[in-house]
Amino acid sequence: MIALDAMGGDFAPKVVVEGAFDALKEFGIKTVLVGKEEEIRHFLPGDGLASQIEIINSDDFVGMNEVPSESFYTKQNSSIQTGIRLVKDKSADAFISAGNTGAVMYAAYKILGTMKDISRPAITSPIPTPQGNCFLLDCGATAESKSQWLRQFAIMGHIYCTRFHGINNPSVGLLSNGSEKSKGVRSLQEAYEMISAEKEINFKGFVEPKDILKGRVDIAVTDGFSGNIFLKTVEAWATIFVELYLKNQSKSLKNRISSFFSKNSVNDVLDKLIVSNYGGSPLLGINGLCVICHGESNAPSIKNAIRITNDYVSNDFVDVMSGETTRISSEGKKRDIPKRKSLRGFWKSIFREKRKEQ
Amino acid sequence: MIALDAMGGDFAPKVVVEGAFDALKEFGIKTVLVGKEEEIRHFLPGDGLASQIEIINSDDFVGMNEVPSESFYTKQNSSIQTGIRLVKDKSADAFISAGNTGAVMYAAYKILGTMKDISRPAITSPIPTPQGNCFLLDCGATAESKSQWLRQFAIMGHIYCTRFHGINNPSVGLLSNGSEKSKGVRSLQEAYEMISAEKEINFKGFVEPKDILKGRVDIAVTDGFSGNIFLKTVEAWATIFVELYLKNQSKSLKNRISSFFSKNSVNDVLDKLIVSNYGGSPLLGINGLCVICHGESNAPSIKNAIRITNDYVSNDFVDVMSGETTRISSEGKKRDIPKRKSLRGFWKSIFREKRKEQ
Repeated sequence: MIALDAMGGDFAPKVVVEGAFDALKEFGIKTVLVGKEEEIRHFLPGDGLASQIEIINSDDFVGMNEVPSESFYTKQNSSIQTGIRLVKDKSADAFISAGNTGAVMYAAYKILGTMKDISRPAITSPIPTPQGNCFLLDCGATAESKSQWLRQFAIMGHIYCTRFHGINNPSVGLLSNGSEKSKGVRSLQEAYEMISAEKEINFKGFVEPKDILKGRVDIAVTDGFSGNIFLKTVEAWATIFVELYLKNQSKSLKNRISSFFSKNSVNDVLDKLIVSNYGGSPLLGINGLCVICHGESNAPSIKNAIRITNDYVSNDFVDVMSGETTRISSEGKKRDIPKRKSLRGFWKSIFREKRKEQ
Repeated sequence: MIALDAMGGDFAPKVVVEGAFDALKEFGIKTVLVGKEEEIRHFLPGDGLASQIEIINSDDFVGMNEVPSESFYTKQNSSIQTGIRLVKDKSADAFISAGNTGAVMYAAYKILGTMKDISRPAITSPIPTPQGNCFLLDCGATAESKSQWLRQFAIMGHIYCTRFHGINNPSVGLLSNGSEKSKGVRSLQEAYEMISAEKEINFKGFVEPKDILKGRVDIAVTDGFSGNIFLKTVEAWATIFVELYLKNQSKSLKNRISSFFSKNSVNDVLDKLIVSNYGGSPLLGINGLCVICHGESNAPSIKNAIRITNDYVSNDFVDVMSGETTRISSEGKKRDIPKRKSLRGFWKSIFREKRKEQ
């Protein structure tokens, strides 16, 4: 059974309820809707089929702009926390939300915790490229990342693509301000060495934004701050282009004629490039399946997210991710640098710090 | 007299020599070309006017992909270092280069040093918005920034816009992963407080990528790493859109017809959004005038950069920037937090660190 945050997203509860109903009708997937019962019932069709959708009432909900850590303590009966607790109690196999991503992430981290060898969860998002998708992680779960966490993200991305997206030997890049090894900040340079040492990972070193957008790697690893800036820049650029383009088109008769002919051509390209309502992406590293949808999701994207989540459940998403992470990590531990060497690294970094200050 | 890096840029020395000649012809601005004399002479017209352009021979040059710190020590006679030394010796009023930005920045920092109250230089770039430009700094001079440096960037951006771009009371935003005060990493949160305390600065708090691209602030302050990622994402998206659009157009007859009509409409919008060959931007905080041009600059952009640089020279760019920075900084020092409070902040940060590790 999959639990759904009926109150999450810009067009909730309408599109969530519709998406849930469509998923039941088309794929026969039953869901539990968590949210204000009265509002949910308002959007459920009179259809007898609708009676197969369960509703769990929850009066509180977290707004899209609320601060995640605050809402966690002030709104313990929110649809988000109620839904995630269903996963914790094993009453639900998964939880889907198009609501406040930070709040879902924070509640999932607090209630479900992370997998055994994972320190921090990561939000992943497919970035559309001319060749398909590049999976970016972390898109904003943890703003500042230690190098060790970036290594974990690379491992999770590798497993996610290999096992759940059918990508054989996916290539992994570290997002940086240049492709040369000398680029990046210190945590990135450390992560570079760590990921290079992972034999199973097809590591391509540092990549720049253009490498991601051109699809030169399957997975792009970054800290949540830079990942979020990158993702938001891509989304914003596309939106502004469309706005200006539409505005420009209505300016003169000539433009209106031109727009009539060009619409398809421009839309074709934009369709390929806009960070789409892909359906939903799982929070990686969380000890339970939580799927995040775009805030602007419509009913078809919610339906799609339900289908994808159902597939993840059937394929033991959490067990596979967790088992594989532990396997790869334990191999890493065997290989890890001996203590003396790391002490030398410690003094080296102290001197580097001093030299920098001078 | 303005010195020009004849060897810098993707189309050097041709476009640099042409740009210098055009600037002399159109505006009567004389320049010194630094680079391989033979190659420069090859592109200089036989025109008697050309004899007014001085040439300083320099056999070495720094490639676009060379590591700045390495090239500084191995290529001390490069066109970049020769040109910057002309500024140091007061033989030239300014140096312009479309070459390896990192190498110019590194050499300028080492040879000319920073202004009195500035710890690190910043590269600024105008980001085109529907309303005009938003000036982004730092675009990549210093990857990791201390909060204090971000404060200095805000002050420099403020002076640059007020005194050299005629923007009255320019608004300043700090690039972050959300506009709420709780967002960002620690150095950003500290910088937020510091910039808020600057009375002369019209500070708007944290801004997201969309706020910059929509022109909601005149100046966006960021560390060099994030600024570089942002700038490169904007550039890459536009390039990929154009590539896909052109490819899509040639696919079928219908698309070819559509493209014929849409070309103007799409180009109009792209012209507004592409990080343009704006002419050139000065390195802020450097104790001498160095102007950076885009690597893809053509002759008209070089000519334009020479004109802009000439204006900066006439308006005492370095003296104004340096004097105003010192004035604002000294007011800040009067106001700065007493020692006891900062000691408390020190312990607070230690505890915060510990809590994080747990």
